Amino acid sequence: MNMHEQFNFAIEVLGTISFSMSGSFAAMQKRLDPFGVLIIAFVTSVGGGTVRDLLLDIPVFWMHDLLTCALIILTSIFTMVFKSFEKNFRVTLFIFDSFGLGLFTIIGVQKGLHADIHPLICIGLGTITGCFGGIIRDILLNRIPLIFRKEIYATACIVGGSAFLLLTKFTTLSYTIIQIFTILLIVSIRTLAVKYHWQIPKFYGYENNSEM
Amino acid sequence: MNMHEQFNFAIEVLGTISFSMSGSFAAMQKRLDPFGVLIIAFVTSVGGGTVRDLLLDIPVFWMHDLLTCALIILTSIFTMVFKSFEKNFRVTLFIFDSFGLGLFTIIGVQKGLHADIHPLICIGLGTITGCFGGIIRDILLNRIPLIFRKEIYATACIVGGSAFLLLTKFTTLSYTIIQIFTILLIVSIRTLAVKYHWQIPKFYGYENNSEM
Amino acid sequence: MNMHEQFNFAIEVLGTISFSMSGSFAAMQKRLDPFGVLIIAFVTSVGGGTVRDLLLDIPVFWMHDLLTCALIILTSIFTMVFKSFEKNFRVTLFIFDSFGLGLFTIIGVQKGLHADIHPLICIGLGTITGCFGGIIRDILLNRIPLIFRKEIYATACIVGGSAFLLLTKFTTLSYTIIQIFTILLIVSIRTLAVKYHWQIPKFYGYENNSEM
Repeated sequence: MNMHEQFNFAIEVLGTISFSMSGSFAAMQKRLDPFGVLIIAFVTSVGGGTVRDLLLDIPVFWMHDLLTCALIILTSIFTMVFKSFEKNFRVTLFIFDSFGLGLFTIIGVQKGLHADIHPLICIGLGTITGCFGGIIRDILLNRIPLIFRKEIYATACIVGGSAFLLLTKFTTLSYTIIQIFTILLIVSIRTLAVKYHWQIPKFYGYENNSEM
Repeated sequence: MNMHEQFNFAIEVLGTISFSMSGSFAAMQKRLDPFGVLIIAFVTSVGGGTVRDLLLDIPVFWMHDLLTCALIILTSIFTMVFKSFEKNFRVTLFIFDSFGLGLFTIIGVQKGLHADIHPLICIGLGTITGCFGGIIRDILLNRIPLIFRKEIYATACIVGGSAFLLLTKFTTLSYTIIQIFTILLIVSIRTLAVKYHWQIPKFYGYENNSEM
Repeated sequence: MNMHEQFNFAIEVLGTISFSMSGSFAAMQKRLDPFGVLIIAFVTSVGGGTVRDLLLDIPVFWMHDLLTCALIILTSIFTMVFKSFEKNFRVTLFIFDSFGLGLFTIIGVQKGLHADIHPLICIGLGTITGCFGGIIRDILLNRIPLIFRKEIYATACIVGGSAFLLLTKFTTLSYTIIQIFTILLIVSIRTLAVKYHWQIPKFYGYENNSEM
């Protein structure tokens, strides 16, 4: 593997680990037993990429990738065993999760471009790759889906994906530089949004909350 | 495009617009921010067709169709900007949504027949195409899924799809005529069902509501 | 068909019937109308196998299999008409459902191995085949997903799938014998778990139930 592949590989591993941890924590909070925790950790890690691969009609990435599966299982067991450290973990987890979101989003955009999908649609694919794992996790755990509690989550993917496309098209920066920059951009947007309670202004003042 | 293709194209555009509007309204009612609204509008519009294409293992229709994506984004923005008109819109929206349901159902049946699927299964594909977008929207928004509140929704698809198959098989009417008729049939069934609170009689008197 | 195929065919039919019945009962409890019941029965029966086939990128099994669809429809109608017998049915239903779970799990593992998927991942495919139908049913009916109420459900699939792999690899027992044994193993685990309220010990004492 050249340096660029090693870079991708390293952060993909970190992303998988972090999503697996966030899934495990969420499942343990809902009192699932160890096997239930394992399943939720798995769905959270591979959900987004699976939907992306199905939409692109390319082989689902984890079907022939034992490493991903092993990583998820080991991380999930590790999380259950050491969960007592959770308080110390929480910040680390948030950082890992944000990096996972950033990397998975960019990977999604790249896979879309590689399959000759129009850039605008690739931004959607990146967002799906980054967000759907968490959405499926929340639906299975009967929680209000993520997208619905911290919308900045999806917004960060859309902004980061757009930045990635613009920089690759209009600048001569090296691919790896652009990747690092856009991943950090997504991480920063999300971190700052959570830290300072950012909200996208709702320019429509919808008061009627009755079901249509 | 010949006249028949133009006819399909025109109503497909109307259907996409209407589902995008209904998704946007539902998301705004749940106080999602603009990006969240956009995502829900997108899912509502393409959800049914996406599941259908995955089941048929044909390319997912919107992956190479920028027009659909652009239409959804513009409609969603338009809906957010002009939502103050919503009250005036509500009837128009209902009509559009019903037409979308009708057209998408028939398109689903047609795509199934075209892929040599047995007619009985094609009715299912038509129903999926018409209904799943709304079901996914409701699951993401944590609402009681549509299929569960106004069952006539799915029933209209099943009846319309069956009528389409019977008319194409046993009559000599032109394809476009049959299309128009079955679409109008679905629209009428749904409209009358909502207007007169039609219900399919539950011939089983299930009283025990405890979880199994 | 040779004897082994007939054996598979017979239990697959039983599994389809049983999942169709459990779906119909759940939908009737939620007061869906007949068409709604039919749709839920269908989703419960084919949901798991559909996700499995999409992941393996092989043709979705029921798209060209009218028998499955007819079986589901007839079973669902039968269940609605004769639901008054439900009390007498409940035990039969539980047994059928457990056998369906066992057979579908083993079929999932087999299809995975047949597609050259790593055994560890095949266990996951088996679990998905056995469990996802019920999960989707519960999500559509807005119930707390199965996996979350009786975790032994998924656990039984994982144990049974693992036993199937170990026995085929390390013993010389005939394929059919191993199949029958592992199916009975899954059925027994689930039955005993429900009868004696087995729980996998949660070795992590998670008390904080707040959303992250």
